[in-house]
Amino acid sequence: MIRAMAEKFPYKLWKLFVPICIGIAIYLLPKPEMIDPKGWKLLGIFVATIIGIVLKPLPMAAISLIGMLACVVTNTLKLTEEALLGFGSPIVWLVVFIFFIARGFIKTKLGHRIAYNFVALLGKRTLGLGYGIILTELVMGPAIPSNSARAGGIIYPIVKSIAETLGSRPEDGTARKLGSFLTLVAFQGNLIVSSMFLTAMAANPMAQAIAAKQGVYFSWGDWFIAALVPGICSIIAVPLVLYLVYPPKLKKLPQAVSIAQKNLRDMGSMSLQEWTMTAVFLIMIAVWVIGENYGIPTTSAGLFGVCVLLLTGILSWKDILAEHEAWSTVIWLSILIMMSGFLEKFGLTAWFSQAIGDIFKGYHSLIGLYGLAIVYFYSHYFFASNTAHIGAMYGAFLAVALMTGAPPVISALLLGFFSSLFSSMTHYSTGSAPIYFGMGYVQVSEWWMYGLVVSIVNIAIWLGIGYLWWSFLGLM
Amino acid sequence: MIRAMAEKFPYKLWKLFVPICIGIAIYLLPKPEMIDPKGWKLLGIFVATIIGIVLKPLPMAAISLIGMLACVVTNTLKLTEEALLGFGSPIVWLVVFIFFIARGFIKTKLGHRIAYNFVALLGKRTLGLGYGIILTELVMGPAIPSNSARAGGIIYPIVKSIAETLGSRPEDGTARKLGSFLTLVAFQGNLIVSSMFLTAMAANPMAQAIAAKQGVYFSWGDWFIAALVPGICSIIAVPLVLYLVYPPKLKKLPQAVSIAQKNLRDMGSMSLQEWTMTAVFLIMIAVWVIGENYGIPTTSAGLFGVCVLLLTGILSWKDILAEHEAWSTVIWLSILIMMSGFLEKFGLTAWFSQAIGDIFKGYHSLIGLYGLAIVYFYSHYFFASNTAHIGAMYGAFLAVALMTGAPPVISALLLGFFSSLFSSMTHYSTGSAPIYFGMGYVQVSEWWMYGLVVSIVNIAIWLGIGYLWWSFLGLM
Repeated sequence: MIRAMAEKFPYKLWKLFVPICIGIAIYLLPKPEMIDPKGWKLLGIFVATIIGIVLKPLPMAAISLIGMLACVVTNTLKLTEEALLGFGSPIVWLVVFIFFIARGFIKTKLGHRIAYNFVALLGKRTLGLGYGIILTELVMGPAIPSNSARAGGIIYPIVKSIAETLGSRPEDGTARKLGSFLTLVAFQGNLIVSSMFLTAMAANPMAQAIAAKQGVYFSWGDWFIAALVPGICSIIAVPLVLYLVYPPKLKKLPQAVSIAQKNLRDMGSMSLQEWTMTAVFLIMIAVWVIGENYGIPTTSAGLFGVCVLLLTGILSWKDILAEHEAWSTVIWLSILIMMSGFLEKFGLTAWFSQAIGDIFKGYHSLIGLYGLAIVYFYSHYFFASNTAHIGAMYGAFLAVALMTGAPPVISALLLGFFSSLFSSMTHYSTGSAPIYFGMGYVQVSEWWMYGLVVSIVNIAIWLGIGYLWWSFLGLM
Repeated sequence: MIRAMAEKFPYKLWKLFVPICIGIAIYLLPKPEMIDPKGWKLLGIFVATIIGIVLKPLPMAAISLIGMLACVVTNTLKLTEEALLGFGSPIVWLVVFIFFIARGFIKTKLGHRIAYNFVALLGKRTLGLGYGIILTELVMGPAIPSNSARAGGIIYPIVKSIAETLGSRPEDGTARKLGSFLTLVAFQGNLIVSSMFLTAMAANPMAQAIAAKQGVYFSWGDWFIAALVPGICSIIAVPLVLYLVYPPKLKKLPQAVSIAQKNLRDMGSMSLQEWTMTAVFLIMIAVWVIGENYGIPTTSAGLFGVCVLLLTGILSWKDILAEHEAWSTVIWLSILIMMSGFLEKFGLTAWFSQAIGDIFKGYHSLIGLYGLAIVYFYSHYFFASNTAHIGAMYGAFLAVALMTGAPPVISALLLGFFSSLFSSMTHYSTGSAPIYFGMGYVQVSEWWMYGLVVSIVNIAIWLGIGYLWWSFLGLM
């Protein structure tokens, strides 16, 4: 009877019960005194939701809704005053608007035109394409302070168009030909570039400001010089590592260059719609470059882009409704951002920072700093935003590092670099993650596994080669 | 050249420019001193958005996004801290969850079963079906204090199933056969029932509390007795009027009863999925009936329902993504609720109440009360929630009415009754409006036109027959 009922379910029941049991187990662990009882419940629900997302008895958005329901029925969060507020999160709507705008790129064929040009230039090998994508990121990094805008507004439509143009699609078994590899290279490249310039990620200046409050000062140039060598090493190493552990099935693209050149000739000159799309694109970039100075949020540029595409008829509302990935993202990303925000609010992060501080206080400065940095890095599993993570933990961890006698400037910078690199592991880590994840070329389990691999590579480079470079610079 | 470009647009350009010009014209009118300059800009944008929604150069959700962009670029609202917050509105998510749950009703065929039973009982004439729907509302009215929950969770899936079962669909030209008429009857019936019991609409007790602060007291029974006669007259008259001005093409349903009976026999006994759906349904009703006492928001019951349907596999995430009307509603309803909220915040309503108060202060008490009530009624064009409207204007209007010497209790009650009836005019007026509108059987222009007709009928009944009844009761 039970087996008969269980077979009616659209998923294996253990995939549902394992997360629930783990969530309850966490809740039953002794609660540290300084944490709000609601926070302890929320930790259990958050971990259960994440495990549910990875085991995937149901699609991610459904699991997130169930996680939200769990918050409400356990009296952890109030639905109307607390839980629903996540749906107003600006990063969610930036991601959603960018999904829509990318559809405009593809529909007008501007995306294909850019992709063909890209392939015509660099398309002999898949690895070359990967490096080309990161180089494009690198050129824009200093000027566009939102990693989500850079990834989503510019690189993502290009990557999507390249993959589709060369016959790799998420739905028909051709994902691994090209698209999966390019997705992860573009995503990880986005994070490395974000860590290399003070102005390449929106929250980097926040780290700078928090450090300054503790009497540690560094400039744009200090950041850039210190990040230069480990950054270049990461840019070289990470695509290579992904190429080895997660290889594209198409490694060489012998005819790609000539096909791309032929297709470019066939396309002829730009259409009015392509020019419109280009104009929207350039205005959005302009807002992302200079908007920060005028207090214009990155999401506004996205809203502007979507409205122009609707007004000019480049996108119809039907096109927008058909962007199912965007609508799923509204649900799951809002809920994860909301939960992660309340974990901080309920004192989880403060408790965690203090506990970690107690552990590392007594150690030698370098061990202390490196230990802190690694814990800081991996605690990003619990965050859905770089800004939130920096706001919650950067100050506390820097203070502990300074107490152990670690060199101040490099302590502040290292935690700053890691404040972008730590997003490598999950598909909800920072704005660019759900965008690339939403392309559908990479499964959740793959995203997490290769994200973990990349995190180890990055940590080794930044703590190893970084050490040599910073010693050479006289910073350590 | 311009004509050639204009032809490329997916709509007639005047439909875009008329609302923009009206919006600018309102902005250029002399601003009353007490209003925040931002509020005056917002009024222009709000009116332009509404006119845009009615003229419909683009679908409603697209127009709403453009309205939100207008708020941002004119520096009227900040995107991230103000405009996006509307997406966390509980009523929006109640509506969205209810769209999903209705899909479960239809998918499990429970909706069809209930519809067949309904038709077997009352299905000889379309008008009879309409009255049957309102009677069902009437039975539940005293017990379910959320008009959205009652309409969306219970009546809406039944109406949708009846219309589809009897061959009337929004998309294939058969809307006017049956569905359009039943939609408006169900919607207007929902409002009349909401006005008849203190506990039939969530904000009615709020009116009671505001009145009590001004020293005017009335009980559940006072409300019910005073509403009884005009309420019954409205219940009889409104479907008849709609039947005359917006007639269903199918007036008699000669075979409907026998078809329904045959189909019920063919369906056999309830499936496991139907029983699950029934259980979800009953639990939701239970929460809506008693939840108010325990502070459980109506939206929570909706979230619960959606999660159960997902967990039991009755709904897949694909079903939910395919509910395009729900996703459009997320956009347009959130934005309209947000704008309407800020109109109040920026002092528009306070100014309006004061200006109206000045006009009516000198009049004879009955003329004053009736004038105030009518202005109160039609000002709901500017509101997307009964609660917001009551909160913003009920107290001020009641105070003016008392100043003119109008009978206190009936003044408080009349404004209370109108606090539900005034939602008849627009498709964003109260939670049940977007739900029924979302069925797609009624065009925006029809909704507004027949809404206006019904508003006149209701005002005539409540001020005319109401006067006689209240005089008879000794209240006037």
